[in-house]
Order: sequence, then C-alpha cells, then structure tokens
Amino acid sequence: MPDPLLLPMADQPPVERADAARNREALLCAARRLVEERGVGCVTMEAVAAAAGVGKGTVFRRFESREGLMAAVLDFSETAWQASVISGPPPLGPGADPWDRLLAFGRSRLETTLLHADLIRAAGATGSRAAGAYSFTALHVQHLLSELGVDGDLPLLATALLAPLEVPIIERQQAGGFPVERLLTGWEDLARRVTGRR
Amino acid sequence: MPDPLLLPMADQPPVERADAARNREALLCAARRLVEERGVGCVTMEAVAAAAGVGKGTVFRRFESREGLMAAVLDFSETAWQASVISGPPPLGPGADPWDRLLAFGRSRLETTLLHADLIRAAGATGSRAAGAYSFTALHVQHLLSELGVDGDLPLLATALLAPLEVPIIERQQAGGFPVERLLTGWEDLARRVTGRR
Repeated sequence: MPDPLLLPMADQPPVERADAARNREALLCAARRLVEERGVGCVTMEAVAAAAGVGKGTVFRRFESREGLMAAVLDFSETAWQASVISGPPPLGPGADPWDRLLAFGRSRLETTLLHADLIRAAGATGSRAAGAYSFTALHVQHLLSELGVDGDLPLLATALLAPLEVPIIERQQAGGFPVERLLTGWEDLARRVTGRR
Repeated sequence: MPDPLLLPMADQPPVERADAARNREALLCAARRLVEERGVGCVTMEAVAAAAGVGKGTVFRRFESREGLMAAVLDFSETAWQASVISGPPPLGPGADPWDRLLAFGRSRLETTLLHADLIRAAGATGSRAAGAYSFTALHVQHLLSELGVDGDLPLLATALLAPLEVPIIERQQAGGFPVERLLTGWEDLARRVTGRR
C-alpha cells in the first residue's frame, strides 16, 4: 500500500519517488505471485499495480508494456532457477554425482519450462533474454557430459539433450498426448542412451 | 502470360475463368521458383502474379494473403518431400536397409527444414498444416526405429530424434555457430546413440 501521508497525484504517484530497486522487486514479486495464482492470461497491469500497492502508471513506466513486465517476471524466475543450479542444494546444485545432477537437471528444467511457457509466450519478442538462459543450460549440460566422460561433439549433444526440454518440442509432445510423467521418463531414457549408460 | 485474345477486365481477369486447378498449380510453381531464386523475403504477390502471367487479384482470390500463399507453397513442397519418402528412390524411399533409410531421412529432413524455415515464418499462423507434416515424420521415424529392433518408448524417442531437425532447435544451433555439416554429423551420432549402434 502507498504511504497514506503522501497524497497521490494524477500523473505522478508518490511511490515513484521511493527506492527504485525495492519498488521494482516488489512489483516483480507481486506479478510472479499473481501469475502462479491466476495464470498468465488473467494477470493485467492493473492487477499487478493493485497487488504491489502502486499506481498503474508506475507499472507502465517501469516495464513499458505487459510484454515487458512478463519478460521481467520470466528473467526474475529464470535467475532464481539458475542460482539453484549454481549454488543450491544437491542433486540439482553442486556436490552430487554428475549422473544424479543430470537427472535432477532434466526434471527441474522440464518443470521450469512448463511453468515459464506461458510467460515466454506473453513476453513475445521482448523475451529475447531467453537466449541467455539457453546458453546457461547448454554449458551446464556440456559440463555434466564432460564430467561423465562422454566422448563426441559435446556442445551439439547438449543441444540434442536440451531440445525435449524446450517449449516448442514440449508443445509438440503434449499435442501428441504424452503426459508430463512420460516426458520425464522418456528424457531420462534419452540421457541414458546419449551418455552410453545402457 | 494471359491469352492475348482475352482482354482483361479491371475486376475479373480472364485467367480466373480458366481451369482452376491448373491455374493454382501454375501459381504455386511460379511462387516456389521465385522463393528458391530470390528468397522468401523478396517474393511479393505482384511478382508471383507476373511470373504466372495472371493478375494480382487472381493471386489474392486464390490465397487470400501473402501468408496464405506461403502456406500453400510450403504444403506443395512438403507434399513432394513426403512422396519421395513414401515412394521415391532408396535410401530415402523404400527398399534400403532401415539404418540407411534413417540416415537418409535425417539428412534430407534437415535440408528440407532449412529450405522451408523461411516459408514457415512467412506463412505465420496460416502454416498450421505443419502439424500434419510433423505427424508424418514422427510415424516414419517410429517405423524405422521399430524395424531396427530398438526397444523403449519409440513414439517419444522419435520426437527426441526429430527435435534437432526442427526449425526452433536448428535456429538455436545456428545461433550457437554450428555449421550445417556439423549438424548433420551430430544428428547421425545422436541416431547411433539412440538406436544403440555404438
């Protein structure tokens, strides 16, 4: 809620003058919570503004458009996921056997992709940061393949392993009637074949 | 060129009264030739009309929009490719060892996808027939895996093998600096691992 002692003005809500970083984070937290509760399609700029206790104008000034806001929420959530891979608890984070880490990565990435799929669509072309997220996952899988002693074109094998964890391929598979649990089992089988663990 | 004996009228060019199927095929042939010569981005409705010797209005009446035309060219080319898999010469067509057919399929599909990538983009949402093309490739790969005696979840393994031959994944790989020849070698290696031929 805005400070009741500061009277809002039509074009310049008082919250705009508060700490910019905290304000931005509050908006992103509110937006992410609304996305999880209602689904991306039901989250408007007005609802995010109301939930964060700021004016709608503030949300537009910070994120320019609904696409811009959704791209920022996506980044926010993606960054949290990357942090859990880099320094979170094992087996997703460091400290576990590389095979266990690879399996944990596949499961966690598929779940994250499903959660983010609507955000990616809502972010549209604005969601170009997704390319950076891809580089991170590609390097991580390449690193685990190397730790597992897999021979071959590891950067390319990593793209083949990542493909079934990406939105367009998951959409294909879901359109084909494959439930999520079967996708997970199938990905683990693919990882076994690619790494020669069969 | 239109028959010079038939004077064109502003809203009803004479070619419109000719055999509709032949007319449609002539337009698609002209459009495909132009796409191959100039690239999708340089092909306008006017250029296709001129190349096929009909009025621009005819092209719009048959295909409604540039997207519609590009979707039709895509179908036309995709159908020709499917025919070469079903009844063309081996090793892509029937009569070869299933492993040789799988390798020929991978190479041919990657080349076709690269050729069609711009058409798919230009067709936009109109290019929904692409789902049908995918079902065909998925069933074909599943059939070859079965002929090769591969065990496992073959429908899902087929989607994993097809993923690196699809536009979004190829775009990822090309953005990562992988040249086409490396993609082909990498796909063959993936096929070997998935089928257990290593």
